[in-house]
Amino acid sequence: MKKYSEMNKEELLTLKEQLDQQYAEVKAKGLSLDMSRGKPSAEQLDLSMEMMDVLHSGADLKCETGVDCRNYGVIDGIPEAKRLLGEMSEVDPDHIIIYGNSSLNVMFDSIARSMTHGVMGNTPWCKLDKVKFLCPVPGYDRHFKITEFFGIEMINVPMTVNGPDMDMVEKLVSEDPAIKGIWCVPKYSNPQGYTYSRETVERFARLKPAAPDFRIYWDNAYSIHHLYDDKQDFLVEILAECAKAGNADLVYKFTSTSKVSFPGSGIAAVAASRANLEDFRKYMQIQTIGHDKLNQLRHVRFFKNLDGLHEHMRKHAAIIRPKFEMVLDTFERELEGLGIGEWTKPHGGYFISFDAMDGCAKAIVSRAREVGVKLTDAGATFPYGKDPRDSNIRIAPTYPSLEDLEKAVQVFVLCVKLVSVEKLLEKA
Amino acid sequence: MKKYSEMNKEELLTLKEQLDQQYAEVKAKGLSLDMSRGKPSAEQLDLSMEMMDVLHSGADLKCETGVDCRNYGVIDGIPEAKRLLGEMSEVDPDHIIIYGNSSLNVMFDSIARSMTHGVMGNTPWCKLDKVKFLCPVPGYDRHFKITEFFGIEMINVPMTVNGPDMDMVEKLVSEDPAIKGIWCVPKYSNPQGYTYSRETVERFARLKPAAPDFRIYWDNAYSIHHLYDDKQDFLVEILAECAKAGNADLVYKFTSTSKVSFPGSGIAAVAASRANLEDFRKYMQIQTIGHDKLNQLRHVRFFKNLDGLHEHMRKHAAIIRPKFEMVLDTFERELEGLGIGEWTKPHGGYFISFDAMDGCAKAIVSRAREVGVKLTDAGATFPYGKDPRDSNIRIAPTYPSLEDLEKAVQVFVLCVKLVSVEKLLEKA
Repeated sequence: MKKYSEMNKEELLTLKEQLDQQYAEVKAKGLSLDMSRGKPSAEQLDLSMEMMDVLHSGADLKCETGVDCRNYGVIDGIPEAKRLLGEMSEVDPDHIIIYGNSSLNVMFDSIARSMTHGVMGNTPWCKLDKVKFLCPVPGYDRHFKITEFFGIEMINVPMTVNGPDMDMVEKLVSEDPAIKGIWCVPKYSNPQGYTYSRETVERFARLKPAAPDFRIYWDNAYSIHHLYDDKQDFLVEILAECAKAGNADLVYKFTSTSKVSFPGSGIAAVAASRANLEDFRKYMQIQTIGHDKLNQLRHVRFFKNLDGLHEHMRKHAAIIRPKFEMVLDTFERELEGLGIGEWTKPHGGYFISFDAMDGCAKAIVSRAREVGVKLTDAGATFPYGKDPRDSNIRIAPTYPSLEDLEKAVQVFVLCVKLVSVEKLLEKA
Repeated sequence: MKKYSEMNKEELLTLKEQLDQQYAEVKAKGLSLDMSRGKPSAEQLDLSMEMMDVLHSGADLKCETGVDCRNYGVIDGIPEAKRLLGEMSEVDPDHIIIYGNSSLNVMFDSIARSMTHGVMGNTPWCKLDKVKFLCPVPGYDRHFKITEFFGIEMINVPMTVNGPDMDMVEKLVSEDPAIKGIWCVPKYSNPQGYTYSRETVERFARLKPAAPDFRIYWDNAYSIHHLYDDKQDFLVEILAECAKAGNADLVYKFTSTSKVSFPGSGIAAVAASRANLEDFRKYMQIQTIGHDKLNQLRHVRFFKNLDGLHEHMRKHAAIIRPKFEMVLDTFERELEGLGIGEWTKPHGGYFISFDAMDGCAKAIVSRAREVGVKLTDAGATFPYGKDPRDSNIRIAPTYPSLEDLEKAVQVFVLCVKLVSVEKLLEKA
């Protein structure tokens, strides 16, 4: 294969003609495919259907301490749910609060609480002139939307294969007391599928923030979401590391069963130091009469324990692994050596990250949409939706059927080629 | 019966001796009874057990528009849930957003949103020097806790049998732009069981607030919670009244199935004008990936429609009516004519409100607790927990068994008598 950048104008024009022809053919098919969101497929959801049966009209709906889960009470989670999500989070149940159906909501509420009430007695952020967050990029669009919504200034920190650029994180966090947090998806990161290295986690745990109310927002969304039995990433448990470093209060760790059982009907949890949890509870006990304990009970009775969760996640992997592999095979076959794109090869999570030539991502997404293939918006993986290089595209292979995905990836690859040729012709 | 206030010192001392004797006997029994919270009894919860069966592993879990309720999507509620809660709220489904498991949480979030983002483009409350709320008293403790938590100054407005003192509400609201809201439980109010009259609702709808971001927080918690088939209160629907008065945006109306199905595992809703709902949605779409649609589907398939809800509520009434009647009978038999207490006789809701002689409520609650009967804290029905007359006590008859309740009410009546005698002896 010849690199596109090494082609002369004539070669590029010939290539463009072929690609234009292919694009017209695809357009004629009138496709309607969606590769935009990290949603499980219906086949994956079927895996949890028996969870619908574990609570029935004849079932005992008391939790292990004898509390009737049908009634008011138990603000921060039934003990068996704390144990299950504790195991999933690798944290003692005493350091867990169980929430409602969405960990995103818990993260949002954490920011909202910090705005109006401050963190552990510190000044509420709404009383400060400036609040800033560090945002490893590319990252999760919905994290960035939350901080943007509250008027928090976001600072990009480049991701590496080992996690965020820790030299930059350490420098900024230690110098600027306006920096109050950092968004992290530390395992099988969104969108790259990278897992923070041991050194990265240790450096996080040893941070010396200028702000006493700085917290690491550790969104461990894909902690047990492996694609392979034999190739699994390992993430050092951060609460223990922080405690060891004398920084017990430094981190909020979020998790949920959204992509384990049913998105939107799962249960979420926070793991943190006792002092942080006390801060959370002060807010919770005014905010709510408690979360859905029946759904907590339903999850515990279905999954039982960590082994049950792992067994279940292997079934998910069996469904989505072929999709990831097909996408990666197609990229390799169609794009390897052309110099017009790079992509990650994750061992878990929900995404593949694709970096096109600079200035091409928006055009690729738009070209794909024109022929009926919906991708995550270009720029979505950056704060304010602005990818400075206009290069990154998040590929979400899980939701479409393998057959649909194959068509969609073909279109994607075609659009990458077409837009790249056009970009090179601009300069030729 | 002779009024206590007409007894001379000697009579009072003789009476006190008898009552002290009875109190000592009760104490010896070592009771442990709870009349403190508005919780349904286990028997009531049993009424909804078949709801656990309507979604099962073989069920179709799509809503009527074909959306798979097991997956992400549909931020503001499935259509059939909007219709069901719309019927319950007497509002068109287009004016409904379905929330999670607790309407209290929705109210809290409404205040939190107003603090950080303001109401429909108005200045966020956290940027104002002073924010005030009107609080009809006695009222619901958890409402007052929310406004207190956000540092909002609360102003007591006396309740009457027809609702809050509307002369006072109109005057304050039209004069003071710092007043941003009023807490209302308009039907079978907490704790008195009063229902706002037609005139009260019409005057609410015609309010001319000085603050453009003033809203009525209309917590219609007991809209279908009748005790009787033949004696039911009627509440004028406020959204329509506000629209008629050219004040469409004036009200947020909250409802939930907490005391219909399972507290903590129900569904909640807000009804409001389109402009208000747009304001809510802007927040929601950043805050959450959507609420639990499976639980929405579960509720709709179990209750089906308003008739189903009413039929179900009649079963609740059959269980709790005897409890209310027993309490009221006991009060009448034991206290009528003594001049030491007055109480309400509600047609629905969850509470009876008891007004002791001034300065006696705290002592009564404390005396009852001393012999094992837990009552709602005296003062809880007032902002900051401060009942200026120390008179009001909320009676919650639903949770204990009829047998336990009978014992508890006997203790309560005894404590009312004892504390009243002691109070009169202070002055005698």
